[in-house]
Amino acid sequence: MTMQFKIYKEPELKDPYMVTGLPGVGYVAKLSADYLIKELKAELFEEFYSSSFPPYVLIKKDGTVELLKNELYYWKDDKLKNDLIIFTGNTQAISPEGQYEISNEVLNRAEKFKVKKLFATAAYVTGRHVEKPKVYGVATEQELVEELKKYEVLPMDAGSISGTNGLLFGLAKLRKIQSICLLSETPGYMTPSGRVLTDVKSAQALLEVLSKMLDIKIDMKPLEKEAKMAEEFVQKMEELERRWAEEMRRSVTPPPKDIYI
Amino acid sequence: MTMQFKIYKEPELKDPYMVTGLPGVGYVAKLSADYLIKELKAELFEEFYSSSFPPYVLIKKDGTVELLKNELYYWKDDKLKNDLIIFTGNTQAISPEGQYEISNEVLNRAEKFKVKKLFATAAYVTGRHVEKPKVYGVATEQELVEELKKYEVLPMDAGSISGTNGLLFGLAKLRKIQSICLLSETPGYMTPSGRVLTDVKSAQALLEVLSKMLDIKIDMKPLEKEAKMAEEFVQKMEELERRWAEEMRRSVTPPPKDIYI
Amino acid sequence: MTMQFKIYKEPELKDPYMVTGLPGVGYVAKLSADYLIKELKAELFEEFYSSSFPPYVLIKKDGTVELLKNELYYWKDDKLKNDLIIFTGNTQAISPEGQYEISNEVLNRAEKFKVKKLFATAAYVTGRHVEKPKVYGVATEQELVEELKKYEVLPMDAGSISGTNGLLFGLAKLRKIQSICLLSETPGYMTPSGRVLTDVKSAQALLEVLSKMLDIKIDMKPLEKEAKMAEEFVQKMEELERRWAEEMRRSVTPPPKDIYI
Amino acid sequence: MTMQFKIYKEPELKDPYMVTGLPGVGYVAKLSADYLIKELKAELFEEFYSSSFPPYVLIKKDGTVELLKNELYYWKDDKLKNDLIIFTGNTQAISPEGQYEISNEVLNRAEKFKVKKLFATAAYVTGRHVEKPKVYGVATEQELVEELKKYEVLPMDAGSISGTNGLLFGLAKLRKIQSICLLSETPGYMTPSGRVLTDVKSAQALLEVLSKMLDIKIDMKPLEKEAKMAEEFVQKMEELERRWAEEMRRSVTPPPKDIYI
Repeated sequence: MTMQFKIYKEPELKDPYMVTGLPGVGYVAKLSADYLIKELKAELFEEFYSSSFPPYVLIKKDGTVELLKNELYYWKDDKLKNDLIIFTGNTQAISPEGQYEISNEVLNRAEKFKVKKLFATAAYVTGRHVEKPKVYGVATEQELVEELKKYEVLPMDAGSISGTNGLLFGLAKLRKIQSICLLSETPGYMTPSGRVLTDVKSAQALLEVLSKMLDIKIDMKPLEKEAKMAEEFVQKMEELERRWAEEMRRSVTPPPKDIYI
Repeated sequence: MTMQFKIYKEPELKDPYMVTGLPGVGYVAKLSADYLIKELKAELFEEFYSSSFPPYVLIKKDGTVELLKNELYYWKDDKLKNDLIIFTGNTQAISPEGQYEISNEVLNRAEKFKVKKLFATAAYVTGRHVEKPKVYGVATEQELVEELKKYEVLPMDAGSISGTNGLLFGLAKLRKIQSICLLSETPGYMTPSGRVLTDVKSAQALLEVLSKMLDIKIDMKPLEKEAKMAEEFVQKMEELERRWAEEMRRSVTPPPKDIYI
Repeated sequence: MTMQFKIYKEPELKDPYMVTGLPGVGYVAKLSADYLIKELKAELFEEFYSSSFPPYVLIKKDGTVELLKNELYYWKDDKLKNDLIIFTGNTQAISPEGQYEISNEVLNRAEKFKVKKLFATAAYVTGRHVEKPKVYGVATEQELVEELKKYEVLPMDAGSISGTNGLLFGLAKLRKIQSICLLSETPGYMTPSGRVLTDVKSAQALLEVLSKMLDIKIDMKPLEKEAKMAEEFVQKMEELERRWAEEMRRSVTPPPKDIYI
Repeated sequence: MTMQFKIYKEPELKDPYMVTGLPGVGYVAKLSADYLIKELKAELFEEFYSSSFPPYVLIKKDGTVELLKNELYYWKDDKLKNDLIIFTGNTQAISPEGQYEISNEVLNRAEKFKVKKLFATAAYVTGRHVEKPKVYGVATEQELVEELKKYEVLPMDAGSISGTNGLLFGLAKLRKIQSICLLSETPGYMTPSGRVLTDVKSAQALLEVLSKMLDIKIDMKPLEKEAKMAEEFVQKMEELERRWAEEMRRSVTPPPKDIYI
């Protein structure tokens, strides 16, 4: 595995917290991290490129290309208490080894900036639609589990958290970084072509808790608007994707045809 | 592949034996190792973390996180004959390469502590329920195969032993470490959601032989109680898992949608 | 991953452009690169061999063996303006990591030869037959997107480009190499045995645009003849492959039979 | 990937040829190499162990363990013309990368011992039973293709040869080692449990050609006897395997159950 790091800035940060959120089911974690970045006008300071990312590039609206990458943003706290580092990206490593390696790179940064607490975000797939998604929490220490109750975060007592979102949270413990993982309910519905819908409502529930824990104020209105737009968009998409799925079935790259072994 | 080693203690051991048991079918090997640790009050002295482990973390009953890891315990023999090292963990490397590498790390420790004999534990999947599971044995040398007969261990003459449990045993031979692998019968039944049941009876049969070979006394009563509890638990789990399986089918992470190739 | 490089020549090149085209759906990219090499009589100067290529060798018409490899050709511009490097091969790396690594090796060459612009070729899978395939374009910079319009290349505003063809184009951006990716429509039809047909018409449409952008003249006649021959060949192949497919179903290599776990 | 080499002897060899044959469809290549070793009483001089081999160990008839390994044997030519190196083993690397790496290790030995010609063996899967299997040949050079005709080896003009058997042959070309690959027809039939039958007749046809090319005399009688025994054994096995297959379907190791993502 090879990684490339593109450093734009070396910020000086005061007792920073770290929030992490990569794309996963319902894009709950990714939406939460993105919304924080947008509302706080957080600044990009480093990008990761890795050969463990999926082997493709994205096409942007303006016709230019976007590489798959993970990103680190920072925000200076107005109240001079706890600055913020936000880790997100447009992809996750596809191999387990890549997910471990990237988690460790992020935690190297957490140690370097002396992060006081790490807040990982994730989705809690329930398989059913809910009016008001509940937020669950797990922590690296018993003391933090108690603290979660103050924010009406529901405790968990079994299961597993997978992917980079879960590893980042868990591996923090090995480095003695206090860490909390917030998981927000999402149905995990898929479109007919196998795409999981973006769940803005779930991200909203998560952000309400997270903003209280970080003691920052963010305007939830734009997210609500986005939630509505997302739902309309999703309906249009579904129709398009149903047609695509039909066509794609005939166009998968074939395996090499070996006849002598 | 990257590994991290967390060393808690550097014990001094006298002519130690080593017992190994990682999770596999029926959790036979893992249960055996765990029970030994509990009954002997063996002490943890090193943990392994590896990027070849599955990419997730576990949630404990108290709401805190548990990382996937492999562990080494030691026990000082009261009779001052053979101290004991026990290797276990809550996971196995998922890639074949990872399984080879971790086996070699364990054997590095075996060499360092001058282990006199290695006892690997494993399951013998039969596909049918038996009243009293039989214990089979294989060894690195003909002489040890003969010794097995004294303990009423049944010989084997074909087949293969897979996973880290098998590799540890086999690779010991390359290092000229005397090694025995005990395999205990287990049906290998699965719940409707694809989970293999914990087979306490199979572990019990294995432990009866193993304790004689190690010349240590362990109380089998708590294991019998555990066997009964496990069976009740398993029945409850099955019902829950049947429902989960239903829901999970809709929530698998989708592959990226590539439309231009 | 290990790579081997076989260097035949170290050409001196004047302000070179680079064209890349590896096998993919419809062999559109590969056909385009091959035709350029043939018509320009470009000269081979380096070959790549990699352990990330598929593990087999090809048999040539004359009964000798052909290794899987990627290749670099050069062509000296008669008009002394922009020499040309062409990257192609008879395979692609199968692992994502291999695709990233090979793309980076090619871009190392691009930097070494101070490539002025990189033109990646790719297929745009539509799932339907078209009389005259359209050519789409994406670029690393907004300025280049504008330039594409002069050549009647259609813009894109969403989606992804996968495989080495897409990575080469995207990773060029990280090195600040101006890069354009041309995608030509192809139905992506498969024969009954799962083989995608060679789409000469699609390559022809791509080459018409590409030759204008490179400001070189190539005779399209032989390609037209080839297009016709390809279609006849394909019909014969289909019948043969249908029969093969039948036979192959019984001959896949079996997994190892593990009975003790 | 890590490899271990166990060297038993450093033979001095005169203008040696090399024969390679690893397990594949019908065990044609492996049977051929094994029979040569047995009849010539060739001597083991090096073993390879690799983390790219499958992660299990084998149980021998005498109840001891056998590791997966690849092996090099040598034989001193009575006629003092061409000594022989034979490469075989009880497994093949499972990853493509492992297959490339091991092929290169073998070719390092071929270069070290100044091998004059390499003869790779392989199976030609036809999907149908034949009375007298035909032997096909491919070579690294046109000159060698012509030579094959003298031995009534049929030429090939298309297709691919996969696995280490094919790679060894093809990669020899990169090192300028003259190499021939002999492929013997085999139906590739499988037992109901997915095991491919050992095809002694196919190996016999291959050995008849190979022994002429190597100019050595080997007694084919024991192989004929073995062929008959193999057929009886295979019939018994099929019945047993049918029953095993039934039981195994219920006992596959389950994937980890992840519920939060």
